[in-house]
Amino acid sequence: MEKKFEELKRRLMEIDDLNSSAAVLSWDQATYMPPGGAAARGRQMATLSSLAQEKFIDLEIGKLLDDLQGYEDGLDYNSNEASLIRKARRDYEKAVKVPAAWVAKFETHAAASYQDWAAARPENDFKRLEDNLKKTLEMSVEFADFFPGYEHIADPLIDNSDEGMKASDIQRVFSELQEELVPLVQAITEQEAVDDNPVKQAYTEDDQLAFGQIVIQDFGYDFERGRQDKTYHPFMTKFSLGDVRITTRVNENDLSEALFSTLHEAGHGMYEQGINPVLEGTPLADGSSSGVHESQSRTWENVVGRSRGFWEHYYPKLQQAFPEQLAQVELEAFYRAINKVSRSLIRTDADEVTYNLHVMIRFDLELQMLEGKLNIEDLPEAWHARYESDLGLRAPSDVDGVLQDVHWYAGTIGGSFQGYTLGNILGALFYESALKANPDIPDEIRHGQFDTLHSWLKENLYMHGAKFTADELIQRVTGGPLRIEPYIAYLKGKYGEIYRL
Amino acid sequence: MEKKFEELKRRLMEIDDLNSSAAVLSWDQATYMPPGGAAARGRQMATLSSLAQEKFIDLEIGKLLDDLQGYEDGLDYNSNEASLIRKARRDYEKAVKVPAAWVAKFETHAAASYQDWAAARPENDFKRLEDNLKKTLEMSVEFADFFPGYEHIADPLIDNSDEGMKASDIQRVFSELQEELVPLVQAITEQEAVDDNPVKQAYTEDDQLAFGQIVIQDFGYDFERGRQDKTYHPFMTKFSLGDVRITTRVNENDLSEALFSTLHEAGHGMYEQGINPVLEGTPLADGSSSGVHESQSRTWENVVGRSRGFWEHYYPKLQQAFPEQLAQVELEAFYRAINKVSRSLIRTDADEVTYNLHVMIRFDLELQMLEGKLNIEDLPEAWHARYESDLGLRAPSDVDGVLQDVHWYAGTIGGSFQGYTLGNILGALFYESALKANPDIPDEIRHGQFDTLHSWLKENLYMHGAKFTADELIQRVTGGPLRIEPYIAYLKGKYGEIYRL
Repeated sequence: MEKKFEELKRRLMEIDDLNSSAAVLSWDQATYMPPGGAAARGRQMATLSSLAQEKFIDLEIGKLLDDLQGYEDGLDYNSNEASLIRKARRDYEKAVKVPAAWVAKFETHAAASYQDWAAARPENDFKRLEDNLKKTLEMSVEFADFFPGYEHIADPLIDNSDEGMKASDIQRVFSELQEELVPLVQAITEQEAVDDNPVKQAYTEDDQLAFGQIVIQDFGYDFERGRQDKTYHPFMTKFSLGDVRITTRVNENDLSEALFSTLHEAGHGMYEQGINPVLEGTPLADGSSSGVHESQSRTWENVVGRSRGFWEHYYPKLQQAFPEQLAQVELEAFYRAINKVSRSLIRTDADEVTYNLHVMIRFDLELQMLEGKLNIEDLPEAWHARYESDLGLRAPSDVDGVLQDVHWYAGTIGGSFQGYTLGNILGALFYESALKANPDIPDEIRHGQFDTLHSWLKENLYMHGAKFTADELIQRVTGGPLRIEPYIAYLKGKYGEIYRL
Repeated sequence: MEKKFEELKRRLMEIDDLNSSAAVLSWDQATYMPPGGAAARGRQMATLSSLAQEKFIDLEIGKLLDDLQGYEDGLDYNSNEASLIRKARRDYEKAVKVPAAWVAKFETHAAASYQDWAAARPENDFKRLEDNLKKTLEMSVEFADFFPGYEHIADPLIDNSDEGMKASDIQRVFSELQEELVPLVQAITEQEAVDDNPVKQAYTEDDQLAFGQIVIQDFGYDFERGRQDKTYHPFMTKFSLGDVRITTRVNENDLSEALFSTLHEAGHGMYEQGINPVLEGTPLADGSSSGVHESQSRTWENVVGRSRGFWEHYYPKLQQAFPEQLAQVELEAFYRAINKVSRSLIRTDADEVTYNLHVMIRFDLELQMLEGKLNIEDLPEAWHARYESDLGLRAPSDVDGVLQDVHWYAGTIGGSFQGYTLGNILGALFYESALKANPDIPDEIRHGQFDTLHSWLKENLYMHGAKFTADELIQRVTGGPLRIEPYIAYLKGKYGEIYRL
């Protein structure tokens, strides 16, 4: 039986090699590839992905998984071996339900649709993308229908990134959260606006990058097993547990862009760098879910990186790096500037408090489209209407409206956005447990020390990789189910103080 | 029949995608990969290569090639279609003779042997590498024996990089060349030594790189379809005809290292960038042979880049870039410095005249080892003995002796070195034809113009990719077989003048 288990691992590792290779090609495309490389690169990545898919849905893998059922039943549920078989089986059972021809067709469509979006967005030309989006919606519904028996048509799509989550669960959590957020945003925006001019000065690129790298090295991001490069849309990518890279972009007139994207992506990176090395090359060498992954990027970016304690230590260093810009700016003014709350149009630029309202709008629109209650033609106006009702703003054009996010233009409609807000909620929830176990964490942060927090996160979350689902992790770590209270308490505490509510 | 041809192309393109992906991984390993990525990267590249090999030796490819025999016979020999089938058949017939298990075993051995060399070389520890080399020699003989009927046991190994060439052909050419070189080197070294201090000053890295990039852009290297990065051992690599990259290394105390390696690799790169785009993704989108490839790197590096005419145009620009170092140095002194001839120990640092003597030593030792006339234990001393007799020098240790080149430690023994000298010979041969067709090329070079030369090379060599063998190309371009006379005339003319012989 151990021989069959080794054979399963060998096959999964070969598939992982193909997927990791595709990731290298994709990273290169986003960082260093010259323009002439684009055409062939798309084809090369498609070849690698479809070979990986072909090898994964091989009947032999199904047979191995069947044969290993008894072996798995005799193992401890928490063991690496049982978890590997369990996770591989779940992935396999999902993968075989989706015809390879459909996958290839969808990937081709998504790649073309992405190219069209990149061209049409600067020209504010939603009309040009309507047919693509209709096809995307049609195929998203087709995808869901490969998994009959769902409660809501979005469930199979959500399950893809946040396994085990259902639309109804998320709707319940989001509506609880919204009830708290709306009055909070209202109360904040009734106060005097914060001055964020200190961060909106001229900051040279090299100095910005150097500062960010010092901070994330202090966090515990390991540059021996990673690196940072520049790109247009920041991301984290993993080629192996020894090579987890991050990217960023720099705005020389806004300090916060590169800095907080660096802390954010480093959070994702530290998660993957912290996975137990014995899981290397298997489907367990991955994050648990999109929500859990985002919880870590948001923890290091916001809970740590936008906290007053953190800046008590780092602000003097930042002032030293940028004396011209900051020598005259008090810590408190800087702290308020990087935590300015305001209703705005762009999700990725939004502050911690309003951010979730952006996510909820997208999530609700996804559900409506999938339910057939919102036509693609009516999407731009539905977008504007929701922004007006939820944020009191109307974008001057679709560029800053329905065209702003790439997700629907490069992937399915459904399942793409909920992870961001789940991440905020989970980040606060896990952080609460970390504090319970180690009450001196905030004090350490005030001294630029992150070992205790990082070690706790590694031990309780990172090292497990994808052994456990988000629900299982939450139960293990907090002893109960998902709760929004710690997140609400965090927001109210922090912003109540800043805005003297 | 056209359908079968398309099916063959589709399969070959998938294989090319795998090989190109492996090339991206290898480039990344040599440029940006953090140390932690090494272990998994080796495995990933091995997975890609063995999948490519597996797909290439698929019986279905053999069947398609058989079925297409009649179709091929009806086509013009020079057509892209006939050339593709012809080349694919040659490659296929070679590939199926080598068992996949042997390939995997050899790749694993070569990777381990390379690692050991990298560790043992700085410690001058040849002993530690003896067993590896014995195995390499054993496997090189095994490889040759997969191709029974050879005239010399090195022939199948030579055929791998210089298709159609035999040891006896090369021995004949090399001995003719040696007869000319030995007295030339003797005569030169009797003259007063040239002063190369002008190039051995402090030159900042960024300025060196910037200058080299300006020159190769003028040559016609296309940065829209390529880029230059830093590495330890400079190389050129192609991911597609739209993405042909070069690398270099910089010595801040020697101007010539990065500069001439840049011109050299750009020559390789321009060859591949010049291949007809309709050949993309097929086995024809490649150089013709290692000798032909090297002819182009050496042409742009030496025939053009170390010529007096070239520097008449570029030296004032170089002086402007490095006024402190060069303002007081005359063009003539600089020209002589970059063309200094001296007997030396290291092949890669050797000048144009003595370079080939280094190659011949290695080529002869390879043959002796394969013939069983030289044992691995005796190799270091055989190396020293040849350097003493041919160059009058003895390396103080094996570091600058038999340990200096990676080739035998990372590949087969046999077939690895002849291409360098063939390249020198072919470069001069092709250049002679270019001059015959366009006598004003030297004058254009004196004005920093390379269009006529570049266009002629593209039209007569580059665009054909691997459609023709080296012999076919030589016949097409020069109307006759390989001759060493143009190369001898080039060396005697140039160095006779510099050294006033």
